[in-house]
Amino acid sequence: MASITGTVVLAIAGLSAAQLTGRGFPDCSQGPLKNNKVCDLSLDPLTRATALISAFTLDEKLNRVPRLGLPAYTWWQEALHGVAGSPGVNFSDHGPFSVATSFPQPILMGAAFDDQLIMDVATVVSTEARAFNNDDRAGLDFWTPNINPFKDPRWGRGQETPGEDPFHLSSYVHALILGLQGGLNPKYKRVIATCKHFAAYDMEDWNGNFRYQWDAHVNSQDLAEYYMPPFQSCARDSNVGSFMCSYNALNGVPTCADPYLLQTILREHWGWTNEEQYVTSDCDAIQNIYLPHKYRETREASVAAALNAGTDLDCGTVYQHHLPAALEQGLFNVSTLDQALVRMYSSLVRVGYFDGLRVPFRNLTAADVNTKASQDLAYKAAAEGITLLKNDGTLPMKITSDMTVLIVGGYADATTQMQGNYAGIAPYLHSPTWALNHTGAKVYTATGPGGQGNPTTDSWLAVWNWAPKADVIIYADGIDNSVEAEGNDRNSIAWTGAQLDMIGQLAEYGKPMVVLQMGGGQLDSSPIASNPNISALIWGGYPGQSGGEALIDTITGKNAPAGRLPVTQYPADYITQIPMTDMSLRPNATSGSPGRTYQWYTGTPIYDYGYGLHYTNFTASIQSPGDGFAISDLMSNCTEKYKDKCAFTTISVDVKNAGAVTSDYVTLGFLAGTHGPAPHPNKRLVAYTRLHSVTGGSSSTASLKMTLGGLGRVDETGSRWLYPGDYALMIDTQPLAMANFTLTGDAVCLDDWPQPPTPQRQDSDYFVGGYGSSYDGQVLVDGNVP
Amino acid sequence: MASITGTVVLAIAGLSAAQLTGRGFPDCSQGPLKNNKVCDLSLDPLTRATALISAFTLDEKLNRVPRLGLPAYTWWQEALHGVAGSPGVNFSDHGPFSVATSFPQPILMGAAFDDQLIMDVATVVSTEARAFNNDDRAGLDFWTPNINPFKDPRWGRGQETPGEDPFHLSSYVHALILGLQGGLNPKYKRVIATCKHFAAYDMEDWNGNFRYQWDAHVNSQDLAEYYMPPFQSCARDSNVGSFMCSYNALNGVPTCADPYLLQTILREHWGWTNEEQYVTSDCDAIQNIYLPHKYRETREASVAAALNAGTDLDCGTVYQHHLPAALEQGLFNVSTLDQALVRMYSSLVRVGYFDGLRVPFRNLTAADVNTKASQDLAYKAAAEGITLLKNDGTLPMKITSDMTVLIVGGYADATTQMQGNYAGIAPYLHSPTWALNHTGAKVYTATGPGGQGNPTTDSWLAVWNWAPKADVIIYADGIDNSVEAEGNDRNSIAWTGAQLDMIGQLAEYGKPMVVLQMGGGQLDSSPIASNPNISALIWGGYPGQSGGEALIDTITGKNAPAGRLPVTQYPADYITQIPMTDMSLRPNATSGSPGRTYQWYTGTPIYDYGYGLHYTNFTASIQSPGDGFAISDLMSNCTEKYKDKCAFTTISVDVKNAGAVTSDYVTLGFLAGTHGPAPHPNKRLVAYTRLHSVTGGSSSTASLKMTLGGLGRVDETGSRWLYPGDYALMIDTQPLAMANFTLTGDAVCLDDWPQPPTPQRQDSDYFVGGYGSSYDGQVLVDGNVP
Repeated sequence: MASITGTVVLAIAGLSAAQLTGRGFPDCSQGPLKNNKVCDLSLDPLTRATALISAFTLDEKLNRVPRLGLPAYTWWQEALHGVAGSPGVNFSDHGPFSVATSFPQPILMGAAFDDQLIMDVATVVSTEARAFNNDDRAGLDFWTPNINPFKDPRWGRGQETPGEDPFHLSSYVHALILGLQGGLNPKYKRVIATCKHFAAYDMEDWNGNFRYQWDAHVNSQDLAEYYMPPFQSCARDSNVGSFMCSYNALNGVPTCADPYLLQTILREHWGWTNEEQYVTSDCDAIQNIYLPHKYRETREASVAAALNAGTDLDCGTVYQHHLPAALEQGLFNVSTLDQALVRMYSSLVRVGYFDGLRVPFRNLTAADVNTKASQDLAYKAAAEGITLLKNDGTLPMKITSDMTVLIVGGYADATTQMQGNYAGIAPYLHSPTWALNHTGAKVYTATGPGGQGNPTTDSWLAVWNWAPKADVIIYADGIDNSVEAEGNDRNSIAWTGAQLDMIGQLAEYGKPMVVLQMGGGQLDSSPIASNPNISALIWGGYPGQSGGEALIDTITGKNAPAGRLPVTQYPADYITQIPMTDMSLRPNATSGSPGRTYQWYTGTPIYDYGYGLHYTNFTASIQSPGDGFAISDLMSNCTEKYKDKCAFTTISVDVKNAGAVTSDYVTLGFLAGTHGPAPHPNKRLVAYTRLHSVTGGSSSTASLKMTLGGLGRVDETGSRWLYPGDYALMIDTQPLAMANFTLTGDAVCLDDWPQPPTPQRQDSDYFVGGYGSSYDGQVLVDGNVP
Repeated sequence: MASITGTVVLAIAGLSAAQLTGRGFPDCSQGPLKNNKVCDLSLDPLTRATALISAFTLDEKLNRVPRLGLPAYTWWQEALHGVAGSPGVNFSDHGPFSVATSFPQPILMGAAFDDQLIMDVATVVSTEARAFNNDDRAGLDFWTPNINPFKDPRWGRGQETPGEDPFHLSSYVHALILGLQGGLNPKYKRVIATCKHFAAYDMEDWNGNFRYQWDAHVNSQDLAEYYMPPFQSCARDSNVGSFMCSYNALNGVPTCADPYLLQTILREHWGWTNEEQYVTSDCDAIQNIYLPHKYRETREASVAAALNAGTDLDCGTVYQHHLPAALEQGLFNVSTLDQALVRMYSSLVRVGYFDGLRVPFRNLTAADVNTKASQDLAYKAAAEGITLLKNDGTLPMKITSDMTVLIVGGYADATTQMQGNYAGIAPYLHSPTWALNHTGAKVYTATGPGGQGNPTTDSWLAVWNWAPKADVIIYADGIDNSVEAEGNDRNSIAWTGAQLDMIGQLAEYGKPMVVLQMGGGQLDSSPIASNPNISALIWGGYPGQSGGEALIDTITGKNAPAGRLPVTQYPADYITQIPMTDMSLRPNATSGSPGRTYQWYTGTPIYDYGYGLHYTNFTASIQSPGDGFAISDLMSNCTEKYKDKCAFTTISVDVKNAGAVTSDYVTLGFLAGTHGPAPHPNKRLVAYTRLHSVTGGSSSTASLKMTLGGLGRVDETGSRWLYPGDYALMIDTQPLAMANFTLTGDAVCLDDWPQPPTPQRQDSDYFVGGYGSSYDGQVLVDGNVP
């Protein structure tokens, strides 16, 4: 959605009777609502919401006049990695509710590959959100998670996601939503989570292609195989309360006006139909249907297209302004408006909005925000995600009070930089320098060269004075939200020349030297990897409020690193080989595309997806599940409504810590082999679990639950099938263990993907006229540089 | 140079003994300097500076130890359109010296086509600069002007230039430097002006091509014909005190390491050799020679390459850090270092740095800053540049106290937005709303949709409430420095969809409606031009401290507009037809380039270069200079050292105001015709002058001085020739008058352009190794998306 900085107050008018002032809860004990069935706790949410909407006049439905004693409600809260600054969230200036726990960005939490951690974090977020709500400082719907796969390393918002792999994201988001909403089907949801941005949204502004007008062309195979699984997990498997349609068009249709997406796939195919669920637009995405998408000839037709497609809530003002005329023109039925309102208000019923103090979360207070346990969890989340990419044996390294440490770079004394975007106000932001100072060592801190916009050498002279005196040199830099951000994709994935120059000069001192590579998107760190004078390289993402401590503790060994890269680290010239506008995953000889993600990339990554070192060595052995399976047998045991959810087997992996240092170990299960349609991916993640605190010399067992869907592959129509053929399950990126098996018999369809209407967009649908005679639709850039 | 925000303190170590603390003037009355010849006013600057440098030890030359009682001097002041925030400028928090006059950005001052205005503005700037200097709040060198031609509409820094035409820029910059320095060859320069960025610098970050590593490929014809004339005007014709070499490479050689540019062209060909002139690098551009340019294999070789090429001053720290080792390696001679220091200090002698109160400008005080006359001039500069692009007769329009005005858009109540970049602290910033409030009318103000990054409809509902009540609607929007900026080229030259939607909806009310198109780069305003419900369109650029008044006065007729577009307004899809990396001007069938600037563009512009309407009608007639000229005759009268400076003739143009409204009139003289090498440009500007206050029904005479160089054209080697053939002089863009004449005889060379060394860059010059064995030079992106 549109950029948010700090606390913003913005009318999210939508279809609600919400206004900006006078929030709080509705009064069911007295006043106009008292005798409305919406206040009858014995009834189901749908019945209650229907009763409320029945009492609305048409004007109220069109959001002209608030009445009925319904307080204002702002439908826009953010909580990407903690309760965050947003129109509906009001941090206090000081004292209670002036802060909220600020966890790492999802990209680093993804690197932990620890679903329980994610659920714990999400539970803290929803607890703090409820406490804010009780103090009238937040609503109850939160526009998190961003679960679009991080497909292209340039994407400015990849930091908001857990990574590039659709299985990983599906598993992660399930844990997250359960934590945010309080389980799969609780009586009262803790909060309403919102899966965004539906769908195929993963570009901000590359080379004249703006998210607001970009039309993503995606074939059914890539759509079902790559772009959809996280959303399927949200809707079908996690009962998320809300979806957000995106700015972009998909195959010619703006997503907020696309019944194929919002009705056929989301509601029908995934069964997201209990009417306690609604779709919101991204902010002004409905306006964008008219301009710049030019999808309908009039503004009235544009808003009607969105409402009729199933976009219930407008983050913007165009529903409010143009639905009345659209209704007069007969472009939608009032029943469709009613349905949208019922969906929104039944959702509020479901979070206990009308139920007063009977809702258990109503007893949460400021004392439940920023607790010691939450602080510890924020530290843990950072520590678990931090990923060791290079170590010549220097690490772990004690830092003692008799030592001198030089720390240089943009993150040396970072504070809010460590939060990334969509952040709240943290109780503290402990920088690497802060953490170093707490070791008692003598610490020199310098900012180093600037980022891509301003690589100045201002600080260099001081650095050269200090470097000879240092026992250890730490270079903490990379990228931050001045380089990768909402509205701002990267156009380089290399360290800047000034950064490499400074790193190279620091390395020439021959001291123990650690590089901390910070930021969400990866940088090509091959110059660091190949420099023998650089001892170690650690990727720290955006580690949040305790980021500096977690990073320094990783250097000293207080934290034994076990994070894994949740994205591929490509060579710097990867971005010259594929335009950001190419949505296809598979390599393509004609276009020259080397393919996308570790599953399809034909080149050699700098560091592979899932890569991460430890301070010890692990070995693994698989307890084989058997080497041959008849597809008919597997299906005969499958009784799930959605066949892909049926279990294949749970594979036990014995993991031994063959070294001395106690360490977590992320057990990654990749599947490869010749089965299903060619081309075949290099491999694909089908299971993972994180083992905790495996002590030196001991073993632990990882249980990898594999489903039939995990074995299945997607055909060109988007349907998922279980195919006969050879399968190889590999543990870890440089496999520590492997199990081969075969499936025999006829292929069976696990998921019959609904086909798009043909043609999906009629030529006559295109808006070529513009507003009246005054606007020549030709003049808008089509966004494609030839 | 690198971004500056507010007051920055940065060591510009360079070759000076400058430090950051304790500035002020050197003491020639007592102390160590007293008996040094640098304090002898009877000697010439070169002798004086040589004496000073002779007293330096080698360590002092290498900038290790300040001595000799020489105070700190910071070589980095900015004054693009008024004394500006920069490392060497220190505004007071309050009271005297807390503000400086803030003129419009050069792009709008360029639109005035009034060289006298430019000289007047520059004189105010140098006066205020001297007053700041006297209070120890600024140095005496200023890194202005940016005189690279505004070739591509995407360029984020085009706003800093007067436009796209090399003749216009050459004439403008001559007037500017005379104002800044106080004449062509004054005893004491007022300040040292710095022409930047030498050369072919006009891209920030397009599509992965960063200014720091970009290698511009320019042929000799385009170089001499388009990229060089403004710099030739600076060096050869205006005696500018300083040049700045740029970040980019030119034909393989980083400009700060290019002896062809800095020695052959600048110093030898243009005779810029009086040794009271020096070259500074852009900030960290010398570091960039090593990385990311990878032009030399070591840091020492990189700094030596810059010093030997003639870059005297390092804005950065690499001279200080690496010259000592480079000297030990024998990579440069101390005499070269001495020469650089002499150039810098003789320049300081020339501004009277050592001459105490004998310097006439030393009596300037805070009373000479922000005077009433300067305020009036800032208003005049804005008023003269503002350009009327469309008017259906609604304008001028009285705004009276009984009227209601709705003003909407990002510039409706703009303050610092009106300044653009490299701005100082203005005494006031009068927004359009401020000016409207002073009419006594009832004014509604709303921000309108955001820019490219955030086109939200937050403000729309309020607008729809107010629009029906308004007598007049003004929409003031466009782009600002969040869209076009240093480090940030545009990737759209269209209004955003949200802006066009709001404009379209406002127009539907059928009220008198004026659109103010703001910002430096042009936007495709064809939807506004073609909407019959929009009364008028005015381009306002960045109009500075009095911008709002000048804009509203233009609407009401208090100011009769006479500005002309100093750049072409291209259709929005122009940027899909030519990559920013294409440096060639001429159209190219192979690449598909439609050509650059009005001289070569083969398409139809939305508004042409030089376009601008008035509140009256003008007619013109040329007093013909004759219809045939023998080249031999013209040359026999030519006695200038530089033949291109010889006069051809002064053409008198009688301009009549055929209407009723008193108005200025910019007399533009374009030359076309078949002469010189094909292809021939559409036309080219060869003379201009602005007539002031021509009253209705009266006439005035414009004297257009034409030189042989103006008639001349440039061949493929870069040499300028006077060719036989047909010439047509046209007055104005839709010619009001035309004179045809012919030149006969043999072509004569006016300027024998020095040829680049062949090959200009040896393969062996390229740095392919990187730092030691640790860095594989291959990994840096070459910046070109295939």
